[in-house]
Amino acid sequence: MAADAELSAHGPLGIIAGSGGLPRRVIESCRAAGREVFVLALEGEADREAVATVPHAWCRVGAAATALDLLRTNAVSDLVLAGGVRRPSLAALRPDWQAAKILARIGYRALGDDGLLKAVIKELEREGFRVIGADQLLDEAGLPEGPLGRIRPDPDAESDIAHGMRIARAIGALDIGQAVVVQQGFVLGVEAIEGTDGLLRRCAPLRREGPGGVLVKVEKPGQEKRADRPVIGPQTVILAAESGLCGIAAEAGATLVLDRDEVIRLADSTGLFVVGIRPSDP
Amino acid sequence: MAADAELSAHGPLGIIAGSGGLPRRVIESCRAAGREVFVLALEGEADREAVATVPHAWCRVGAAATALDLLRTNAVSDLVLAGGVRRPSLAALRPDWQAAKILARIGYRALGDDGLLKAVIKELEREGFRVIGADQLLDEAGLPEGPLGRIRPDPDAESDIAHGMRIARAIGALDIGQAVVVQQGFVLGVEAIEGTDGLLRRCAPLRREGPGGVLVKVEKPGQEKRADRPVIGPQTVILAAESGLCGIAAEAGATLVLDRDEVIRLADSTGLFVVGIRPSDP
Repeated sequence: MAADAELSAHGPLGIIAGSGGLPRRVIESCRAAGREVFVLALEGEADREAVATVPHAWCRVGAAATALDLLRTNAVSDLVLAGGVRRPSLAALRPDWQAAKILARIGYRALGDDGLLKAVIKELEREGFRVIGADQLLDEAGLPEGPLGRIRPDPDAESDIAHGMRIARAIGALDIGQAVVVQQGFVLGVEAIEGTDGLLRRCAPLRREGPGGVLVKVEKPGQEKRADRPVIGPQTVILAAESGLCGIAAEAGATLVLDRDEVIRLADSTGLFVVGIRPSDP
Repeated sequence: MAADAELSAHGPLGIIAGSGGLPRRVIESCRAAGREVFVLALEGEADREAVATVPHAWCRVGAAATALDLLRTNAVSDLVLAGGVRRPSLAALRPDWQAAKILARIGYRALGDDGLLKAVIKELEREGFRVIGADQLLDEAGLPEGPLGRIRPDPDAESDIAHGMRIARAIGALDIGQAVVVQQGFVLGVEAIEGTDGLLRRCAPLRREGPGGVLVKVEKPGQEKRADRPVIGPQTVILAAESGLCGIAAEAGATLVLDRDEVIRLADSTGLFVVGIRPSDP
C-alpha cells in the first residue's frame, strides 16, 4: 500500500462501496496490507460477494443518518468512496432527515453526477471524516501512457482516438459522462446514465461495416479525483471485444485499471489495444 | 404549396428520399399541388411504399454518378433532400468514380453528419441543381412556439426542458446529434448515430423512478437548413409515450412536424405535451 503512512493509525478504513470491481480491489488491497476495514455497502450497487468476507453493513443511498451512525459506531475516521452509484431520482432516494438536510443545502436538480459527488465529499468532511482517493490505496492502479499489452493502435485508430478524446472531454465538461465510442470518424455512442458497460453493449449493433471502433474514456474536466475516476477493467475489455471494437483508449494518469494482468491477458488474447493517452496528446 | 412560385416551371421536382416520414409528406404535398416529381430512393433508407406510386428509381448512397445521371435523364433541375441517411462507413459506401472524386475533394473522416450534408449540397449545386428545403414545400410544417396540443409542461418539465436545450445545443455544436432525454435534471441519453427513435427506445429502461422525462430536440448550430432539419412526427410521440416520458420539446421555427393533426391527437390521447421552444428561451 503505497500511501499507507498517510492513513490514520487507528480505526478501520471506511469503504463506501458502490458498483463495479473497484470496491473488491480496495478490500483486497487492504487485506494484503493488514489494514482493517469497515464497508458501508450501498443497496442495489455493491456486490454481495465482494463485501461478504469483511465487516460490513448495508445502507440505502438516501439513508445518510444511518450511514453516518454506522461509520461512527465502527470507529471509522478515514473513508474511501469506491465504485459507481447510479444517481437515483428524488422519489427513489427517499432521503432520511439527514439526507434531506444535505439535499436542501446543496440542491439536487441542478447538479450533475460530478457536482453531486463533490458535494457529498464536502459533507463527509464537514462531518469530520477524511476522504481518501481509491488510487492512493491501490498499487500500480493508474493507467500509464502508451499501450498496456502487445497491440498498438494503427493510424486509423489513432485518428478515432484523437476525435474521441475531443468529444469525450466536451461530454465530460457538460457532466454527462466519461466515455464515447468512435468508429471511422463517427460517434457511435455517447455515455450518459447507462454507464460504460451499457454504452459498449448498445454500440455493438451500431457499428458500421468495416474495421475499427474505439472506446475512449477520460476524466471529466475538474472531476473530483476522490470519487468516480474513470475505471477500466477485465469487463471493459470483454465487452469492447464482444462489441467488435479494436481497442480502448483512456486518459493516462487519471484512469484506474482494475486487475491489470487480466486486462493485459484479455486484450492480447482478443487482439485489442488498451492504451493510455496524455491529455495534451492530439 | 406555399412557395410554389419559387420553383422552376419546367421539369419534375427531384426528391432524394432517405428514411423516416418526410419523403412521403413531400410526395403527398406535391401530388396535392399537381407538381410532378421524380424520386431518387436511397437503398436501405427510403420506404418502398412511400415511393411506389410515383416515378422513382433506387440508388445506392455511394453511386453518385448513377444518381446524377438519373436526375438529368428525368429532367430534374430543382431538388429536395428529404429524410435521414445513416452515414455509411467508407467500406459500405463503395463509392463509384464520381463519389470517389467528391470524397477526395471534401474529405470524409473529418466531417460530421452536418458537415457532410453541407458538402453534398454544395456538390449538387456545383452540378447545376437548385437545392430547396423540404419546409418550403410543406404547408404548416414548422413547429410554432408554445404547446401544440392540450397539455402543457409543468414547472419540473420546464426545468428539464431548459437543461435539455443547453445540452442538446452543445451536442449539436459537436455535430454528434440533435436530441437528448432529460429526467429530473439528469441526462438519460444523448443521441448519436442511433437516431431519435433509437434514443427513445433505449431510454425506456434508463428512466428513474418518479415522474417526468422529456425529449428535447434542437437544430445543430449552423446546421444546413435544406437537409436533416429536426423532425418530429406521430412515431416520435408514440415512442416517447412508450418510454414513459411526459413530453417533447423541440426548437420552434427550426423543427418540421410531420402530420401535425395526428401528432396533436396522439399527444392529447397519451397525455404528453409537444411544445415549441424559441432558442432565446431559458
